[in-house]
Amino acid sequence: MTAEPAPSAVSADPIPIQAAAQVDQDRLWRRHEIMARFGARPDGGVNRQAFSDDEAHARTQLERWTSALGLQGHVDPITNLFFRLEGRRPDLAPVLVGSHIDSQPAGGRFDGIYGVLAGLEALEAIRAAGITPRRPIELVAWVNEEGSSFSPGMTGSAVFAGAEDLESALQHRNWAGETIAERIGPMLRATPLAHRRSRRVDPFAYLEAHIEQGPQLEAADVPVGIVTGIQGARWFDVEVTGEAAHAGTTPLGKRRDALSGAVRMIERLEAHFWGAGDPDMRFTVGRVEVGPGAPNTVPERVFFTIDFRHPDRKVLSAFGDAIEPICWDQRGRCAVRVVETQHSAPVTFPEAMTDRLARAAGALAIPSLTLPSGANHDAKFLAGLCPTAMLFIPCRNGVSHNPEEWAEPVHVAAGARVLTHALVDLAAA
Amino acid sequence: MTAEPAPSAVSADPIPIQAAAQVDQDRLWRRHEIMARFGARPDGGVNRQAFSDDEAHARTQLERWTSALGLQGHVDPITNLFFRLEGRRPDLAPVLVGSHIDSQPAGGRFDGIYGVLAGLEALEAIRAAGITPRRPIELVAWVNEEGSSFSPGMTGSAVFAGAEDLESALQHRNWAGETIAERIGPMLRATPLAHRRSRRVDPFAYLEAHIEQGPQLEAADVPVGIVTGIQGARWFDVEVTGEAAHAGTTPLGKRRDALSGAVRMIERLEAHFWGAGDPDMRFTVGRVEVGPGAPNTVPERVFFTIDFRHPDRKVLSAFGDAIEPICWDQRGRCAVRVVETQHSAPVTFPEAMTDRLARAAGALAIPSLTLPSGANHDAKFLAGLCPTAMLFIPCRNGVSHNPEEWAEPVHVAAGARVLTHALVDLAAA
Repeated sequence: MTAEPAPSAVSADPIPIQAAAQVDQDRLWRRHEIMARFGARPDGGVNRQAFSDDEAHARTQLERWTSALGLQGHVDPITNLFFRLEGRRPDLAPVLVGSHIDSQPAGGRFDGIYGVLAGLEALEAIRAAGITPRRPIELVAWVNEEGSSFSPGMTGSAVFAGAEDLESALQHRNWAGETIAERIGPMLRATPLAHRRSRRVDPFAYLEAHIEQGPQLEAADVPVGIVTGIQGARWFDVEVTGEAAHAGTTPLGKRRDALSGAVRMIERLEAHFWGAGDPDMRFTVGRVEVGPGAPNTVPERVFFTIDFRHPDRKVLSAFGDAIEPICWDQRGRCAVRVVETQHSAPVTFPEAMTDRLARAAGALAIPSLTLPSGANHDAKFLAGLCPTAMLFIPCRNGVSHNPEEWAEPVHVAAGARVLTHALVDLAAA
Repeated sequence: MTAEPAPSAVSADPIPIQAAAQVDQDRLWRRHEIMARFGARPDGGVNRQAFSDDEAHARTQLERWTSALGLQGHVDPITNLFFRLEGRRPDLAPVLVGSHIDSQPAGGRFDGIYGVLAGLEALEAIRAAGITPRRPIELVAWVNEEGSSFSPGMTGSAVFAGAEDLESALQHRNWAGETIAERIGPMLRATPLAHRRSRRVDPFAYLEAHIEQGPQLEAADVPVGIVTGIQGARWFDVEVTGEAAHAGTTPLGKRRDALSGAVRMIERLEAHFWGAGDPDMRFTVGRVEVGPGAPNTVPERVFFTIDFRHPDRKVLSAFGDAIEPICWDQRGRCAVRVVETQHSAPVTFPEAMTDRLARAAGALAIPSLTLPSGANHDAKFLAGLCPTAMLFIPCRNGVSHNPEEWAEPVHVAAGARVLTHALVDLAAA
């Protein structure tokens, strides 16, 4: 994370600055409050899972605001939602801006929806400034980013980018056994004014604003983060198998204790990963199951997950590949099986895009710094399709996926201003 | 564990040897097969939990056999069942012999029921040898030893010995919400010939036969184990509290990972307990829960149990008391709470009783060795009331509480012979 000096204002283009000046902090904050009613939880959080009726109602609300602004809606076969601000050259590839509407079941008021409302606010501001951009700009709401009901997540952006087949995505089921295909109808009915769009519009560029979901901006007291990329992630399942035995009668030499084995493995893995002293390292054993789970029975089986992330492809490869040998070394008299369940390569956003965001912040005299994204975002799939970048705003204590999630109104507005500036800039290209 | 040399046969009393010779291996084995039908599982095991209809049916079967032998049944207020072989001196305190009828839900054909059927076989053999003992002998089946349905276990022997109050025991509930009090009626109806007995008969002595539930007799290829006592046990709950955080965004310095803390604690505890190199040491972490349990969330809370057993009171005290300081030392940035949930002092059976069993084995030329009991038994409560001893027979691979539980017919009979000898001996005192 590096503090960016604001470039001298001499070189600043007045048009995007005028647009950014039209961002209305109160309107943008009020819209967050209105959206928080769809799926409101008694604890102040939000439960607005993908393809739920609550999400459908939020989409209807979004259509109300965008149609008041005169934007035409479009909905694609997986029900990603686009609202188009027409450009002077409708034939040119549009700039996309947005994020997602769905939340975790115990989610907050900002994760996802901030990127959609900030994008909408940018279009409001551009209109209010009397600007008609050269290229069209489309506000987008990707479906099922969270994957909490229909797993895995990032369905909308994956299908849009061709990373997942539409037909297979439509067959994903939630815990109730419903398919995504069965939920398409209610989603379409929620935005009656939107046109169906079967052919993908190739984007010129993509911008996404999001809360940081980490502590760095808050710690540095900086309102905007320029995201350098999304770190890579490797997920593993580890299963240790020993033998159940009576805790009172079985001596050490007769034990094949799966928990003892797992404890040694986790202890060695933590020493290996954290011992590297690398500030970008992320190593987490988050889920552990021990069976049969009786206090007086030596454990027969332990299952645990590993979530390993790093922005550097080489580190991701070397450290990830060390997991299985370490588990093997520590297995003692147990058996162990390590399965890699997910491998997501790191994404680096092009400098031309991050520079544009940094210049926007500088032109607006909004302090910013650069940082990688620890969490995954729809921008990952878009990055394979077009020049992409993200900006972060701080969130309290770095907390997200939690009803406690919180962002300050002044930061919410600052992010939208930088976004507006960069959009006007891009749409002029 | 010490091998016992058989004493020279010169000193042997012919009467108990004549009784032991009447033990009928086939009858005793057949009765195990019949009992295994009550609560039979498709996998060959037994699910005959305390106070169930299956246990009631097994009690009816036991009454059939004992009444054919002319033994009067008695049932006490908690429904412990007694069948009395009258002595020449009905006024003297009786010798008790028995165990329990109930099993674990995934239990076997020997745990508990062996001690009841071996006791019954001893009475059959004493009758067949034409012996009327000086003291009465009572076969006893204690209720709810396992505690798998109505927890905790050893209810019948605890109430009999005054370690638990009858009224409080009757209020224990199973998972369905039923109280023991509600199950008393069906139990009483199962043995219509038994008299109600409200006043406790003070026993002269107590003997219990059981499968070993450990590997020592099998390893030594010895058919009978003389149990020196029941080891002590201390149970602890440990709760480690950290803070949930995003696995992808939270750097090491910001983590309060409850699992990392728990792993360090378990690793250090294992090193401390097993590092002592004491063959009698038993240390088990059997149940572990990790929350919230998402692969991409740093664990906030870990709960684990400790089951520590040792036959020596001093070791039990020193090592048990070291648990909390070790957890405290290893807590890192987490909080930790250690609660002792159970403390059961070791029991040593009187030498006069273990010697009697050893002499019985010697007189019958049945090899035996001495060993402590790792598991708990009804004999623990009886030991507080009267001179008590136990004998073990081998079980395959040391396995119990499992449908795979198995004992060889020849061992089943050998144990019953030693038991018969010791009973005749005791009842003559």
